[in-house]
Amino acid sequence: MDIASFVTSLLTSFLIFVVLVLVFTWLSRRPGNAPVYYPNVLLRGLDPWEGRGRGTRSPVGWIQQAFRASEADVVHAGGVDAAVYLVFLSSVLAILVFSGILLLPVLLPVAATSHALEASAGSNASAAHNFTVIERLALGNVEEKSFKLWAFIGSVYWLSFVTYFVLWKSYKHVSNLRAAARSTSDVKPEEFTVLVRDVPIPPPDQSIKDSVDSYFRALHPDTFYKAMVVTDIKKADKIFQEIEGHKQKIAHAEAVYAESKTANKPEGTKPTHKTGFLGLIGKKVDTIEYCNEKIKELLPKLEEEQKNTLSEKQQRAAIVVFNSRAAAASASQTLHAQMFDKWTVTEAPEPREIIWSNLPMKIYDRNTRRSVIYFIVFLTVFFYLIPISAISAVTTLEKLRQKLPFLKVVVDQPIVKTVLQAYLPQLALIVFLALLPALLLFVSKSEGIPAQSHVVRAASGKYFYFVVFNVFLGITISSTLFSALKTIIDNPKGIIDMLGSSLPGSATFFLTFVALKFFVGYGLELSRLVPLIIFHLKKKYLCKTEDEVRAAWTPGDLGYNTRVPSDMLIVTIVLCYSVIAPLIIPFGVAYFALGWLIAKNQVLRVYVPSYESNGRMWPHMHTRIIAALMIYQATMIGVISLKKFVYSSVLIPLIPISLIFAYTCHTRFYPAFAKTPLEVARQELKETPNMGAIYAAYIPPCLKPEKLEDVEVFEDAQSRTTSRAPSF
Amino acid sequence: MDIASFVTSLLTSFLIFVVLVLVFTWLSRRPGNAPVYYPNVLLRGLDPWEGRGRGTRSPVGWIQQAFRASEADVVHAGGVDAAVYLVFLSSVLAILVFSGILLLPVLLPVAATSHALEASAGSNASAAHNFTVIERLALGNVEEKSFKLWAFIGSVYWLSFVTYFVLWKSYKHVSNLRAAARSTSDVKPEEFTVLVRDVPIPPPDQSIKDSVDSYFRALHPDTFYKAMVVTDIKKADKIFQEIEGHKQKIAHAEAVYAESKTANKPEGTKPTHKTGFLGLIGKKVDTIEYCNEKIKELLPKLEEEQKNTLSEKQQRAAIVVFNSRAAAASASQTLHAQMFDKWTVTEAPEPREIIWSNLPMKIYDRNTRRSVIYFIVFLTVFFYLIPISAISAVTTLEKLRQKLPFLKVVVDQPIVKTVLQAYLPQLALIVFLALLPALLLFVSKSEGIPAQSHVVRAASGKYFYFVVFNVFLGITISSTLFSALKTIIDNPKGIIDMLGSSLPGSATFFLTFVALKFFVGYGLELSRLVPLIIFHLKKKYLCKTEDEVRAAWTPGDLGYNTRVPSDMLIVTIVLCYSVIAPLIIPFGVAYFALGWLIAKNQVLRVYVPSYESNGRMWPHMHTRIIAALMIYQATMIGVISLKKFVYSSVLIPLIPISLIFAYTCHTRFYPAFAKTPLEVARQELKETPNMGAIYAAYIPPCLKPEKLEDVEVFEDAQSRTTSRAPSF
Repeated sequence: MDIASFVTSLLTSFLIFVVLVLVFTWLSRRPGNAPVYYPNVLLRGLDPWEGRGRGTRSPVGWIQQAFRASEADVVHAGGVDAAVYLVFLSSVLAILVFSGILLLPVLLPVAATSHALEASAGSNASAAHNFTVIERLALGNVEEKSFKLWAFIGSVYWLSFVTYFVLWKSYKHVSNLRAAARSTSDVKPEEFTVLVRDVPIPPPDQSIKDSVDSYFRALHPDTFYKAMVVTDIKKADKIFQEIEGHKQKIAHAEAVYAESKTANKPEGTKPTHKTGFLGLIGKKVDTIEYCNEKIKELLPKLEEEQKNTLSEKQQRAAIVVFNSRAAAASASQTLHAQMFDKWTVTEAPEPREIIWSNLPMKIYDRNTRRSVIYFIVFLTVFFYLIPISAISAVTTLEKLRQKLPFLKVVVDQPIVKTVLQAYLPQLALIVFLALLPALLLFVSKSEGIPAQSHVVRAASGKYFYFVVFNVFLGITISSTLFSALKTIIDNPKGIIDMLGSSLPGSATFFLTFVALKFFVGYGLELSRLVPLIIFHLKKKYLCKTEDEVRAAWTPGDLGYNTRVPSDMLIVTIVLCYSVIAPLIIPFGVAYFALGWLIAKNQVLRVYVPSYESNGRMWPHMHTRIIAALMIYQATMIGVISLKKFVYSSVLIPLIPISLIFAYTCHTRFYPAFAKTPLEVARQELKETPNMGAIYAAYIPPCLKPEKLEDVEVFEDAQSRTTSRAPSF
Repeated sequence: MDIASFVTSLLTSFLIFVVLVLVFTWLSRRPGNAPVYYPNVLLRGLDPWEGRGRGTRSPVGWIQQAFRASEADVVHAGGVDAAVYLVFLSSVLAILVFSGILLLPVLLPVAATSHALEASAGSNASAAHNFTVIERLALGNVEEKSFKLWAFIGSVYWLSFVTYFVLWKSYKHVSNLRAAARSTSDVKPEEFTVLVRDVPIPPPDQSIKDSVDSYFRALHPDTFYKAMVVTDIKKADKIFQEIEGHKQKIAHAEAVYAESKTANKPEGTKPTHKTGFLGLIGKKVDTIEYCNEKIKELLPKLEEEQKNTLSEKQQRAAIVVFNSRAAAASASQTLHAQMFDKWTVTEAPEPREIIWSNLPMKIYDRNTRRSVIYFIVFLTVFFYLIPISAISAVTTLEKLRQKLPFLKVVVDQPIVKTVLQAYLPQLALIVFLALLPALLLFVSKSEGIPAQSHVVRAASGKYFYFVVFNVFLGITISSTLFSALKTIIDNPKGIIDMLGSSLPGSATFFLTFVALKFFVGYGLELSRLVPLIIFHLKKKYLCKTEDEVRAAWTPGDLGYNTRVPSDMLIVTIVLCYSVIAPLIIPFGVAYFALGWLIAKNQVLRVYVPSYESNGRMWPHMHTRIIAALMIYQATMIGVISLKKFVYSSVLIPLIPISLIFAYTCHTRFYPAFAKTPLEVARQELKETPNMGAIYAAYIPPCLKPEKLEDVEVFEDAQSRTTSRAPSF
């Protein structure tokens, strides 16, 4: 890639960004768009413009507001998880800023006053012109064995210690955030509850519910409150969803009916539909009447199925409620059974994030699935290099032109050519990566993990390794991959040489990648053009009732499973190139500064958390930043020894230092993330907890009785089977 | 080593063994020796000969008795730890027997019908005579690329799966043993107690005792009983020991005095001693009077020091007693503090095995010490190869003869030469290894481990790696080591070739080593000649009082820290050679069969456990057997591929299979060893526990009040400091 296409890329990216920000500023001030730009605020029952007049009216008001909002505001609006994500962004930003302060003024002059590139190209003078500014201001321009390399070695140390320092501070900060969130005096059902899996098969004269009850009553005589056995709700849920669907149809039809009562035609038209496939064939019926009849038909069925589910479809897992937070915290950390495969007790997830279908999975099943999935992911990580290198080979413009000759007319236009040359490889990469997260999420869910937040962590862990191995290492080596494969097999040392020699060459590619990602990506994120269009289309043509409109604008959560790994990729790239080509640091700073600003805006105004894990994501981010740091350290050892610099081994101690740092942080901070400290669980509550409500919170919607008093009946239904055999 | 010296070695070893067994049979039947051969029985208050008449009278009676004793008897006499050690021996025995059943009839004929050795030596016919039977009946005699090698590959698989099977069964068995021991209805102080370390510095108006009290009372309001803060007892203990010493002297002097009152001289002679250095110089005093005076002087000092210690020398660690086993079990598994470096709670060790001086060590201190010690041990493990190879180079008889010419006269005698040639290297090795355990025990204790049993486990873990790396690999490679060092550095693959080629050559050495160890070692162990002589000497010349005699014969415990690793070395050797030279299997069987028999005898009659860890040693043994198995599997991959057999890679899957097996066992069984399951802790007790006695059990002897009622006073002494500043 030459310097022209690089600058083009930067300029067009920036242009798109400016346009999108202007669009955002204009659109977000129109009250009709409030559900798109302020859904979080609306859902919290606030007026988006109240008390914010000045800020919102000025074009940069959102920036002021984002800066003004405290961490407590963020926790209030988006939960601890969102606050932790912002801490992650600001930590990386801090690392890059602190590094840049030293690295840029030191390394750029050192590189600029060197002449290795010209010297190497000396023989053919024409080649010398091809070096870009980026290449000239990089490690590649420093002569072999030069003492200037000490500056680069020092920089690696500086960056490493800056990272340790910032990470340590952040871990401490997040620990306190979590502790504060855990020790609030609010009553949260999950804090009174443990999840029990691997319940053994009870004797034939007991139901599972009875056996859970008697087991926990015996082991926790003073603190056990009630147990709820997990049931197979598939059938009950199907009927329940059908009824809900009919109810929605009635609401919609009634709105349509009311609308049709115009002045001309006061009796209106009763909406009808056909009962057959997709409403296209079959008998034509009056929708309201038909659905009401259906509901009448289904309600007794549901009731019967509920009873049947409760007593006959009990699974070998249970939710056990204790009468105090401390008792639940203590029980969740205590080994209950002598045999490992019985009575596994863990902290209960929040009711809204429980994955019910995973709960009854047996421990053997879970272990086997996990092993198989790890193996598959391992294979995928390693063998995806092949399609990726194929992509990067095809997406060279020249190749594309050869293969698809009809493109020639377009491609040969000079402007189109420059733009395409600048974007094509990056776009291909971004599209490709977009396909993966859904698959990984599905795969992680199949492991048998009981909570949504845990699935997201598992998936984003896999995605990180995927992204680092395939994108970063893949793109770096790909060009030389196929030709060099034979060399590697013959001579394993060759891989260090290759990495060292091909990494500097890819610097420009990654600079463009980072710029593209933040300008265009953040522009789209902020302007929310896609949700805006969808919302307006739906509102105009589909939604008739209040509920339907609300469903059209209800936002999702931040989507950590893709957001975190893609930020992590940028961290890895920027770290790895920080010393090789220090010019990347300002881009990294811009990425994380803008990222922090926009994420904060979106957290405060747009996204609504779909669960609260109290920052359990942090240890995961922390470990992966250290992993990125270690990739960087290893790369630098390779790169600097390629310069035939004998002191490059001075860098080797950094690897064990990183490991020790990771281990220290883990022993120091991790326990309070994996378990609930008793100190925290013993905090006073502001009110006497309503135990019935806590218990009811865990009843799946399709089994939920109408009133709280019916919970007793619900519970009895589970243990009434005392005289019958269990259902399997 | 030629066949003559091998046979000589075997025969002399066997002869020594027979002699020692005869000596044992003869000596153990003399009532005067009962304290040496039956100390355990005596200490349990039984008559060694009661009800065992027939057995003890016949020369093989002890064998019958050992066979007849059930596991319950073993647990009763020597505790669960001893029973687990016997399970370890019998498990290895089972592995070897099951393997031998298949390996010997299959591999010996296969090797015997091959002629690789003769073929290779074909060029110089005289060399052919030098091959011993052992070499002829080993893998070395099989031709390269021969299909007979499939038999050897199959054998590796057979042995591996036999090992998995036996280990699985044994782990299950030991788990049950432990559960049974933990769920007895006896009141054991350690089951009501947790150990608290890293107590934070209390505010100036609180003593540590008060802060521990208030912390645990707040977190465990219903189950907290009492806390005892660990104090610095160094000074109090010194005074206490002085008083005890004087008391012993008085008793001794009184016995001497009573003895001196013969018929001739009814008034007797009052014993005297000099007060100066070692009783050799200084004023001559009447011992009884002097000591009585000293005690009178010291007693008030002790009392004052006790008070001072309790209130002013409180350390930042405590023993916290709960009023039920379940509460203690649950508390020991629950994270207490938000910060990792405060209030570390673990299960309490037994009072008798607590290492008081280690308790107040801070967590940072402990971590640093552990890292430093691991590093030192790592260095030692790797660099001891050098002295060991030096030893094995010097101990060649030829070399010794050259270096020390005055030995020529002795060494040139044919019998002496044969015997020396047979024993010298093995003896050197055994003496060398005997020096190590004390060092490792000391080093492990410095890690800050709170319990003796844990220190023993830590030390024997280090010893195992030491022994395997240095003895096994060292001896195997040492002869070629120095010459081959250059080859290895140039060509890393060379190490597999070297291991493969030098391992078969060392087979005879290790056969002799195993034989020497079991014949002579077990003979000495059984006959207890050294303790016998010491006992009789002491009894005759030194001991005057009943207590002194008892001290002269009181036996120690089994000494797991040296016993287990030295058995593990034999396991490693026998496993590694089992397929290379199957003739080693009968020797291994003999070692572990005799070992089991003699250890059982010694457990039943001799040794007295000094602590009870309820089989915590087992997971440790289990892991190391698997480690030995994996060394064996790796070696076999090398050895068989050296035969240029392309299918040797068929063995590679065994390595991951072993890892998966180890992981599975760990997740399945280990939790119940590391923690107390609540099921077990909830077992009914046969009596209401006397909480005062439980508390008093943890008071160090030098602080112990005379009567149980004084415990209250003792406890108050610790918290009376409410108005004073803490002592640091």
